[in-house]
Amino acid sequence: MASRTSADPLVVFSPSGKKGRFAAGTPLLQAARSLGVDLDSVCGGHAMCGRCQVDVVEGDLPKHDIVSSAENLSAIDEFEQQFLAQSHALPTRRLACHAKVRGDVAVDVPASSQVHRQVVRKPHEDHAINIDPVVRPCFVEVPEPDIDRPEGDLHRLLTALLQDWGLRELNVVPPVLRQLQSALRAGGRKVTVAIRNDAEVIAVWPGVRDRLHGIAVDVGSTTVAAHLCDLRSGDVLASAGKMNPQIRFGEDLMSRVSYIMSNPGAEAKLTAVIRETVNELIGDVCAEAGIDRDDIVEMTAVGNPIMHHLFLGISPIELGRAPFTLATNESVDVVASEMDISIHPGGHIYVLPCIAGHVGADTAGVMLAELPFDRDDISLIVDVGTNAEMLVGNRERLLAASSPTGPAFEGAQISCGQRAAPGAIERVRIDRESLEPRFKVIGNDLWSDDPGFADVLPAGGVTGICGSGIIEAIAEMYSAGIVLSNGNINGALAKQSARIVKDGTVYEYVLFDADPQISITQHDVRAIQLAKAALYAGVELLMKERGVERVDRVRFAGAFGAQIDARYAMVLGMIPACDLDIVSSAGNAAGTGARIALLDRKARPLIEEQVSRVEKVETATRPEFQDLYVAAMAIPHQDLGTQSDKAKRCR
Amino acid sequence: MASRTSADPLVVFSPSGKKGRFAAGTPLLQAARSLGVDLDSVCGGHAMCGRCQVDVVEGDLPKHDIVSSAENLSAIDEFEQQFLAQSHALPTRRLACHAKVRGDVAVDVPASSQVHRQVVRKPHEDHAINIDPVVRPCFVEVPEPDIDRPEGDLHRLLTALLQDWGLRELNVVPPVLRQLQSALRAGGRKVTVAIRNDAEVIAVWPGVRDRLHGIAVDVGSTTVAAHLCDLRSGDVLASAGKMNPQIRFGEDLMSRVSYIMSNPGAEAKLTAVIRETVNELIGDVCAEAGIDRDDIVEMTAVGNPIMHHLFLGISPIELGRAPFTLATNESVDVVASEMDISIHPGGHIYVLPCIAGHVGADTAGVMLAELPFDRDDISLIVDVGTNAEMLVGNRERLLAASSPTGPAFEGAQISCGQRAAPGAIERVRIDRESLEPRFKVIGNDLWSDDPGFADVLPAGGVTGICGSGIIEAIAEMYSAGIVLSNGNINGALAKQSARIVKDGTVYEYVLFDADPQISITQHDVRAIQLAKAALYAGVELLMKERGVERVDRVRFAGAFGAQIDARYAMVLGMIPACDLDIVSSAGNAAGTGARIALLDRKARPLIEEQVSRVEKVETATRPEFQDLYVAAMAIPHQDLGTQSDKAKRCR
Repeated sequence: MASRTSADPLVVFSPSGKKGRFAAGTPLLQAARSLGVDLDSVCGGHAMCGRCQVDVVEGDLPKHDIVSSAENLSAIDEFEQQFLAQSHALPTRRLACHAKVRGDVAVDVPASSQVHRQVVRKPHEDHAINIDPVVRPCFVEVPEPDIDRPEGDLHRLLTALLQDWGLRELNVVPPVLRQLQSALRAGGRKVTVAIRNDAEVIAVWPGVRDRLHGIAVDVGSTTVAAHLCDLRSGDVLASAGKMNPQIRFGEDLMSRVSYIMSNPGAEAKLTAVIRETVNELIGDVCAEAGIDRDDIVEMTAVGNPIMHHLFLGISPIELGRAPFTLATNESVDVVASEMDISIHPGGHIYVLPCIAGHVGADTAGVMLAELPFDRDDISLIVDVGTNAEMLVGNRERLLAASSPTGPAFEGAQISCGQRAAPGAIERVRIDRESLEPRFKVIGNDLWSDDPGFADVLPAGGVTGICGSGIIEAIAEMYSAGIVLSNGNINGALAKQSARIVKDGTVYEYVLFDADPQISITQHDVRAIQLAKAALYAGVELLMKERGVERVDRVRFAGAFGAQIDARYAMVLGMIPACDLDIVSSAGNAAGTGARIALLDRKARPLIEEQVSRVEKVETATRPEFQDLYVAAMAIPHQDLGTQSDKAKRCR
Repeated sequence: MASRTSADPLVVFSPSGKKGRFAAGTPLLQAARSLGVDLDSVCGGHAMCGRCQVDVVEGDLPKHDIVSSAENLSAIDEFEQQFLAQSHALPTRRLACHAKVRGDVAVDVPASSQVHRQVVRKPHEDHAINIDPVVRPCFVEVPEPDIDRPEGDLHRLLTALLQDWGLRELNVVPPVLRQLQSALRAGGRKVTVAIRNDAEVIAVWPGVRDRLHGIAVDVGSTTVAAHLCDLRSGDVLASAGKMNPQIRFGEDLMSRVSYIMSNPGAEAKLTAVIRETVNELIGDVCAEAGIDRDDIVEMTAVGNPIMHHLFLGISPIELGRAPFTLATNESVDVVASEMDISIHPGGHIYVLPCIAGHVGADTAGVMLAELPFDRDDISLIVDVGTNAEMLVGNRERLLAASSPTGPAFEGAQISCGQRAAPGAIERVRIDRESLEPRFKVIGNDLWSDDPGFADVLPAGGVTGICGSGIIEAIAEMYSAGIVLSNGNINGALAKQSARIVKDGTVYEYVLFDADPQISITQHDVRAIQLAKAALYAGVELLMKERGVERVDRVRFAGAFGAQIDARYAMVLGMIPACDLDIVSSAGNAAGTGARIALLDRKARPLIEEQVSRVEKVETATRPEFQDLYVAAMAIPHQDLGTQSDKAKRCR
């Protein structure tokens, strides 16, 4: 544009403020492109997609020393008129590809016409997601073939993509080669291609297609969740979850690995069932959103190291024995069909990197959702599942570890424990005097001592106690003096309350005296003590390594994190004592991370780099971990001082 | 090595003559590498593969001013001793990775220790093939994992490949990720990887593996042939052929395309059967060579445009109608599993480029085998099949065309025609006086008038006449005056010979009066006239376009080319008259081209570039082609002058 003269009309774009002089007759879209203004277009100026809508500013703009007027653009032609009428556009609206500069003009690019947008996230997510997906649609018109120029249609397509979109040296996946000619014929030589990473043509459709879809999958050991997203708006169009069918090979991760170790070749079976489940979820979300599987052009996935390996078809055997070696700690980018995942045949799957043998791509997802590496204050982020994966640090240093909490927090290995499902006790209160309990069950808003409680119980009645219920029960038992600091159930109270009964040599607390009877046993208290000690010791170790005595924010990630009441977590000594108001739920942060990696291409190199920077702390080989672990067995925990001491530990 | 002093020992390598000074203690292999000497090694100096064997030269070398002696190398240690004893090596032999420089020494690199070798080709192939395949084995020892350094085993492998082999930024295919850890465990952390194009890790095996295999496939419309090659020696270990099962959907190419046009989706069926056949052939050659499918790491394929498209899973519909547009004219490089071809799961298939809608990757293979673009003299290369594909030119300009000869040359559409198979008449002579014929059939060395001919006939007797038999029969009929120059069978001769009989309004010549009777009908003569006119006119058009009146060599490619007698081809006027001694068979040149692309990585960019340089002549749209075609209908052909004129047309 350097050769333009000062006599040429001046064009000013807001909100960017970018401006330049352009020869009369230049379309606004071309002016925007040459200035690097963020103005969307799929059809590349063919006036077909309607994405390049702008609003003309009328009047005097002293700052730019121009008088802007709609008169200074070419007249609206019949096509544009029709288009604008259909979309009920404002009177100021124009299609930038059709409106040509005739004099000085200022135009505003509305948010809906910007390529790079942000979507506001849910309440527990505290920053917006940039929308700049790795796959984007490009419309092109491909010249008719010519018998005297025998190059193939692919060559013609690539030439058109170079001319219209400046894309060069594009790789072309085989499915595109297969679909190209029928798409060209069906679209009258007009097609939309999906371009991945500006490097690869992964799909081709006849005519204009401006909506592409992606799916983010969180492959959990218990639950698999999928979120279908519109790659343009970033909207989640549908979500679905299913139990991980691998559970039939082993409830927890290590029992699945043991199964594979003792049944050579079984990893193929575990891989097949998890992929089948993901395919079913894809079917579910597509049905809900009314789209076709083939409309999904990109997938991202997170999961703990063992799920990560099994989903990728890698045997997790090496993760089941020291030194717990990952096959790869880097992100994996693979064609979906290679993994038997049914999305568009040219679609790819990006699997986030793992951090260490026990700290997986799910934690990478949490990092991406929470961005602790992008903050000055010190975060403690805990994702509690069968293992607890935890992060401590900030932009200077971020440490990660996994601690073997076992599945007690999820209600497993607890005498009356169960998963969080209707009928499970999730909230517990115990009267300090009478030692009588009251509780709530999932699926019912009433407390057990509210009138009519029994009438509104789920069909199966009260079936057990879930993770958050266990924590509250034991914390309340401690607060009521039923459980002592060393974890013993105080048998002396059996005289006071019929709730405390002897079972062999130890005591238990009867929470619900019906059929089945729901009790908290001495064994249950021990299981929770072990789990919380592992969690607390891991956090302590990371804080010591990081050289901090307190953290500025505590985020609980995961489904369990969303249910847990921070007060009770602190009473039990699951986390370092601190002000309750710095503790919050991060929601399903791993899944959110997968969604961010789906919607924002820049998130991928970012998380790859940050994961490589994370310092991994292996709890299993640190002698001091054992000491911290033993010390943390007490309730709340040994080094916990007075309330004022507690407060000091927080900012 | 620039910092070495003149006091350092001098090492001279023959036959390259490369030399340099190296510090005492430097292994010969390292010296060879730093000088760029072509010395093989798979294990990268671990003294495991035995590929770096060299012979020490003893005595005075005045040219290099040194006295070479085996004494000037480190002593042979136990391992090397064992290795050399096992391989029955010459006394002069050493392992370059084990022999360390102590003083001046000259060593000879025997051909068997060179990476880049040539294999001598068959008699009809007139240049050697360079052996420098796209996939090569690299042995590495991967460090043990370390619990405190949680990077994955892939990272360790890639680090080792960088350190030992200087390979960086390697892509890794998913199957390698899946097999890596079990290979590392089985091999005690020692593995061999297959590196493709110095850019990609496509396979991993435990321990040392120095033999990799590849397969070259010629996907013909009638026959599919496969050649299994040792990628190190270039040897063809096994070959196999099968009928193309697509024949059940249509005998010739166009009828298969018609079938697809009238049965939407049928292309998937045709693709499936051809791939299944290729998989069967792979099984056959592997069984013959005693190797496993997974030992094949690379495949190349050639075929005419329709076979090319169907093999790749692309609908050939656009090739069945004007303007005969290829989906792509470029080479295609695709993962074998993506095409359901069962070789090593990380193996790739390279499909040579097509030249035009009727001139396919088979012709590209012929070009690579014959290298007309690398010669000063003018070649005419003809590949006769259902269509005739032809090349005329030299290094300055090379032209290609396809001419619609139809299947008559292959015995189809001929009243008693059949494929070249036992029982088919392949040679014919007719006595000029008596007009009595004699002939030979495939599978029998005797002529029909030899005593005992009937006794040695194949089980089915004389079953028909194949392509070369038809050509000889009609050429002999012409020479005996039975067929006139305009192609009419001369009915006047019916009085002279009972062999010439009337059939309706036209005559036929009875070649074999038995059951079944084998005759050459007027219709047969017309069919051959049309075919040979198409061929001749195509050649003439190319020669005119190329501006040459004669060619320096004529090469007949393909199975038919190997059977045809050049004299008869010339009598009939299939090719321009010329000295018989410049006409020869190029053998299965398309298959040879596929083999070259398999064995020599440089052949790929070479043929891609040369194919893009070829000038394509579309016979169908050239008005002058019709004139040439009509003129070429006569036998031999209209513009053919006297014998002396004929001779002038040749050098």
